[in-house]
Amino acid sequence: MGDNRPGEFELIAKYLAPLATDPGSLALTDDAAVIPSWPGQDLVLTKDMLAAGIHFFPDDPPAAIAAKAIRVNLSDLAAKGAEPKGYLLGLGLPGDWTESFLAEFCQGLKAEQDTFGISLYGGDTIRSPDGFFVSITAIGTLPEGTGVRRSGAKPGDAIFLTGTIGDAALGLKLRLKPELAGTLQLSDADRSHLENRYLLPRPRVKAAAAVRNHANAAVDLSDGLAADLGHICEASGVSARVDIEKLPISKAIFSVITKDAAELGTCIAGGDDYEILACVPAERAEQFAAELKAAGVPARQIGEIAEGEAKVDFLQGGRAIDFAAISGFKHF
Amino acid sequence: MGDNRPGEFELIAKYLAPLATDPGSLALTDDAAVIPSWPGQDLVLTKDMLAAGIHFFPDDPPAAIAAKAIRVNLSDLAAKGAEPKGYLLGLGLPGDWTESFLAEFCQGLKAEQDTFGISLYGGDTIRSPDGFFVSITAIGTLPEGTGVRRSGAKPGDAIFLTGTIGDAALGLKLRLKPELAGTLQLSDADRSHLENRYLLPRPRVKAAAAVRNHANAAVDLSDGLAADLGHICEASGVSARVDIEKLPISKAIFSVITKDAAELGTCIAGGDDYEILACVPAERAEQFAAELKAAGVPARQIGEIAEGEAKVDFLQGGRAIDFAAISGFKHF
Repeated sequence: MGDNRPGEFELIAKYLAPLATDPGSLALTDDAAVIPSWPGQDLVLTKDMLAAGIHFFPDDPPAAIAAKAIRVNLSDLAAKGAEPKGYLLGLGLPGDWTESFLAEFCQGLKAEQDTFGISLYGGDTIRSPDGFFVSITAIGTLPEGTGVRRSGAKPGDAIFLTGTIGDAALGLKLRLKPELAGTLQLSDADRSHLENRYLLPRPRVKAAAAVRNHANAAVDLSDGLAADLGHICEASGVSARVDIEKLPISKAIFSVITKDAAELGTCIAGGDDYEILACVPAERAEQFAAELKAAGVPARQIGEIAEGEAKVDFLQGGRAIDFAAISGFKHF
Repeated sequence: MGDNRPGEFELIAKYLAPLATDPGSLALTDDAAVIPSWPGQDLVLTKDMLAAGIHFFPDDPPAAIAAKAIRVNLSDLAAKGAEPKGYLLGLGLPGDWTESFLAEFCQGLKAEQDTFGISLYGGDTIRSPDGFFVSITAIGTLPEGTGVRRSGAKPGDAIFLTGTIGDAALGLKLRLKPELAGTLQLSDADRSHLENRYLLPRPRVKAAAAVRNHANAAVDLSDGLAADLGHICEASGVSARVDIEKLPISKAIFSVITKDAAELGTCIAGGDDYEILACVPAERAEQFAAELKAAGVPARQIGEIAEGEAKVDFLQGGRAIDFAAISGFKHF
């Protein structure tokens, strides 16, 4: 093509350097960032990559792709109890990338930085042999020794869940099978709510302080409630009981389940919720709930941790439901 | 294919968890690493990505790809004067990845970790729409305030260069045009030396302490001597004079230049050297050279920084050579 797209150095100067607001980023003029350490703080590092056609739809708005790439990483930090500081950005640009795509993508990054108070620290841009991909390494901090792991859950802990679950998984279904909106008689508002939950995760950054102050274990739900609570049980050597009737669901999901009860399985087995599940000692549950409420994060107790081999029991009306049957709901 | 390759969790447990030797990596059982800060140290962060067919040949040995991915990042850290601590690893696996490829790649990472005393901290593995790619974020530290930038060069500084230049660029040429070995009458040993310099960068990690102790500015040569010294001149607002007769070249390159003098251009304009260029105040030059020697890093002075607008003059027998003409040597 007649190529008047910016070259690597121009691209950095025009689009990326304005995002490097922290002095440690050295305005991206060097090959590395140099950042004073945060005294008394531990570092929390996480990395999530997203590729076109796998983690997002190639025709998603560029700013939404940027937002998702940032947010799935911030969600990991929040589940550890960490406050986000900044990130390194790897971009893989396919042969046919356009400057307008890049400009919108960087506007999206800028909006995320403003929302979450973070800076770009550095990164790398390469040509991608195929579609666009993003690799983010996010850096957060927390007071030393307060990091929350998956492995700390103890029998008797109350299991809390922020927000609502299932929306994103159903939103993805709707993207893949638009005709489902008719089958489920969804209102436009409900349909749009569900699709947006898939498009734009809402990392529970404001829950981080309560999590590190009180939780024995925590995880952000990316693989789905059943799988991620299963990870906690495995890492902690405990079992879990979840009361299905206490699962927090949105108005849209409630409406769906009244049409097709099998969609409850989507809430339990579907992924991409990016809500935080935290296991909190019973005696701290009230304080934990109060701190989340003060931080503006909706949350409720959905069950408790128990002794026993790693497994998750889902109870309805006091009776255990066969989880294998619930998993089966995924396939339709 | 009949797929008995490991799934994501098995892949992590079998191949990646053994590389997570630092306790802060949480043995990769969590979605993030939690690392105590290094008191009195600044953090240095860098990110370099490599994609098949762009940064390495798809049929390169997997362990060599792993080594290159680690080393180009460690080279960036060394040029800042930082000691490497660990890295986060992003892997993009194409549809036809094999377990033996992954096993050899991880053995390569293990060898690098042993050589450089670093740990895997975390990462992410995704499906790549096309070829294999690697994204590394490397983390290093240095005593606070000692980080070396590109922008600190001052008139009168001695310009030092470690090792030899041009080998990797000529090694790449030989990979692309094997018949060149005959034209240039290369011995098997020289040919193998040049190809290996391209395949396996040698980051000057042992130079880091001398660099942070003495250099006003430094850079690692990835884009080539002319370009990277040009970056220093631009960032520092100075000019540079390089004596071509002082350029450090290997026996193999010497033999090539005696056959075809135009290949000198390859040394100056070619990339992938991963040597360190450092600008050192004249009064510290002797001490700098002595510390490098004690660290086992060969280096020599090749010129000096001068006043004036950002440009690099190459001198031969005291006369300036037209750099445009030298750049022209690239195209043959």
